[in-house]
Amino acid sequence: MLPQWLIEKKRDGQALSDEEIRWFIEGFTVGRIPDYQMAAMAMAIYCRGMTAAETAVITDAMMRSGDLVDTSAIQRPKADKHSTGGIGDKVSLILAPLVACCGVAVPMISGRGLGITGGTLDKLESIPGYRTDLSEKQFVEVIQKCGCSIIGQTGRLAPADKKLYALRDVTGTVPSIPLITASIMSKKLAEGIDALVLDVKWGKGAFMRTMEDARTLARSMVDVGVHMGKGMAALITDMNRPLGRCAGNALEVIESVQTLQGEGPADLVEVTLALSARMLLLVKKARDEKEARAMLQKHLDSGKAYEVFQEMVRLQGGDPASLEKLHNVHTASLQEPLPALESGTVAAVDAERVGKACVVLGAGRVKTDDKVDFAVGVSNLVQVSENVTKGQPLVVVHANDENRLEEARKLLDGAFTIRREPVKTPPLVYETILP
Amino acid sequence: MLPQWLIEKKRDGQALSDEEIRWFIEGFTVGRIPDYQMAAMAMAIYCRGMTAAETAVITDAMMRSGDLVDTSAIQRPKADKHSTGGIGDKVSLILAPLVACCGVAVPMISGRGLGITGGTLDKLESIPGYRTDLSEKQFVEVIQKCGCSIIGQTGRLAPADKKLYALRDVTGTVPSIPLITASIMSKKLAEGIDALVLDVKWGKGAFMRTMEDARTLARSMVDVGVHMGKGMAALITDMNRPLGRCAGNALEVIESVQTLQGEGPADLVEVTLALSARMLLLVKKARDEKEARAMLQKHLDSGKAYEVFQEMVRLQGGDPASLEKLHNVHTASLQEPLPALESGTVAAVDAERVGKACVVLGAGRVKTDDKVDFAVGVSNLVQVSENVTKGQPLVVVHANDENRLEEARKLLDGAFTIRREPVKTPPLVYETILP
Repeated sequence: MLPQWLIEKKRDGQALSDEEIRWFIEGFTVGRIPDYQMAAMAMAIYCRGMTAAETAVITDAMMRSGDLVDTSAIQRPKADKHSTGGIGDKVSLILAPLVACCGVAVPMISGRGLGITGGTLDKLESIPGYRTDLSEKQFVEVIQKCGCSIIGQTGRLAPADKKLYALRDVTGTVPSIPLITASIMSKKLAEGIDALVLDVKWGKGAFMRTMEDARTLARSMVDVGVHMGKGMAALITDMNRPLGRCAGNALEVIESVQTLQGEGPADLVEVTLALSARMLLLVKKARDEKEARAMLQKHLDSGKAYEVFQEMVRLQGGDPASLEKLHNVHTASLQEPLPALESGTVAAVDAERVGKACVVLGAGRVKTDDKVDFAVGVSNLVQVSENVTKGQPLVVVHANDENRLEEARKLLDGAFTIRREPVKTPPLVYETILP
Repeated sequence: MLPQWLIEKKRDGQALSDEEIRWFIEGFTVGRIPDYQMAAMAMAIYCRGMTAAETAVITDAMMRSGDLVDTSAIQRPKADKHSTGGIGDKVSLILAPLVACCGVAVPMISGRGLGITGGTLDKLESIPGYRTDLSEKQFVEVIQKCGCSIIGQTGRLAPADKKLYALRDVTGTVPSIPLITASIMSKKLAEGIDALVLDVKWGKGAFMRTMEDARTLARSMVDVGVHMGKGMAALITDMNRPLGRCAGNALEVIESVQTLQGEGPADLVEVTLALSARMLLLVKKARDEKEARAMLQKHLDSGKAYEVFQEMVRLQGGDPASLEKLHNVHTASLQEPLPALESGTVAAVDAERVGKACVVLGAGRVKTDDKVDFAVGVSNLVQVSENVTKGQPLVVVHANDENRLEEARKLLDGAFTIRREPVKTPPLVYETILP
């Protein structure tokens, strides 16, 4: 077997066999198949697609290219949530302890921000002392003690994906549904979970720009997960507007803590509850959504979820006492409100512009080795369908540099659409994709 | 500009601009754009195609990646012929001196055999002393003295093509019409010619398996040549059967000499005359095909074409006296006739099987650095529509190794179709593609 024979087969629109896909991915992982052949294969996959069966096999092959987390010591059912990324998406920080309160173990391996979407690890690292680099053993221990743990990817988790993603990034082969599916699912399924809920976002601030694309990706990922014996569901959610009122690392932790204390913005609470409820249903901790939501609401209201979050922070080396004074730990030197130029109803908040403004301020990364500034970002964002009066702040910008502030302001100036006539609030959750 | 932006543009089916194509090819040639990005681009080009204008620009960019032959010192009109390759195709050896007799300069830069198709350089090197590695200066001098010269590619001729071809070979991107066009035409147009006639072969022994594919490639190459100001024509010729009665290096030189002496097989003579006549028409040395053919026939009959061939051999270091005793210079130790198992009419001679037999015998190359055996091959091939009687030889196999002979025999056993009923002779030239 020569690599080019398989490239030709895919190029001609044929389906590759299980053995062929595994041989190719393994060869690429160990370096027997060079980058240029993988690049040609990735482009052929982009152009010709893959069947559901092929997508499941490439996901499995990539997952098996590295270590699988051994969660067998954890007695509870294990479930996780994965989001395709958005602006202000701090759901994981609330969802993990909340679902853990309901008797579900949440072994969450998260990523860093790249481009305009933030990363859960960057947010958590704004908590003094919090370690995201636990060993697998420590990871399992934290979960056994408090029910959840959020850490970063270990070096041996799906190395094929790490290598392939870097190559796709520079060869125009990122937006391929089977390759995105394999990339996400190979890492998530290596966590040793029983069930996975996907938050597939669409819109201006999301990787998937149309609902149609989000639906296609969601279906592909759900199919692969089911094929690999996992309980699966996907929610198609709105990312034309930011989620919640804050974006930026420490600012999002502060908003998450407020939400765990029962004072979160309605959109963030709703998306968190919808995803959390779906997790409980998948592991049969609730009979229907109503029962699931009641359980979740109880743990939010009682402060139990916040206690679990504090405990997780403590077990991972962080200082729980810092959580309620994080605005003092990370304070931007410049905090400037942006006033509304007219009165009316907020018809749109452009998530892409808000996300770009955060990157400009230093909250995100342009290159993978960029450092992030925990203090900067935006807070007090007005939300769609709220009424504003002229002069009232639409957002507060947190910056550590005058020039960056100026650049962010230009982006944010065009981010808000204000209308005289009433505005219909768009849905937060558009669809639920089930097996 | 980042290379991946251009890969994405092509991937999405858009046409690249002149500047973009030149920037990409230049970057690849100097090594600024790595192989993996070129591989992804080549696959995107394979899948999405290129417009005629893009194909012309990539050809020009590849041509200009190296040196152009300066033929300005040659006063005569300059024309060449290129064949896409076939079994027994020794047309160049006869055509170059023949066309030179008519006042046309023929600066022919040829290639070596790879796979089942033979290479003009390998054939010529079976002539003792013949040098294919002349400098550009020597090349021009030979043409000035005898009207034609056949040499090999210099290191600086279209280096982008050399690099790209090696990459395409291992990334499943060889059979792309725009890339084949650019590969062939970038080298041919670097010769400094006014006109080019293409022999695009189709069939079992050709790179293009169907007439449809051959027609598409011919049209693409003619368009590019015209775009670059050259006189262009393409003949679509048959390569389901071998051309002539011999295949193998020295064996083909012997057959070429016989043809130049007026004793060539009818099919070889006809294809050579058709291509040569078209060259004369393009450089206006004849008003119509009839006049062109009369001129050419005269130079064949008078022995003038053979004299020019002998002179070219002499000027390139070869021994003209060896030409008529080449069968003594290169004699295979085993010469075995393969008898017909039944009487009837030859309905087909499978060019692919004959070509594979020649490779097996050692006349061709599997890898680019393989050595070829000048003596081996096949001679005395029967031709389609000839009658044979049981026991009469269908072919004589020339071998230097018993095992290879045996393997070749197995291939050749299945190469001949003999029928009881009369056979219609298929055309040699199917179509002429003009601008």
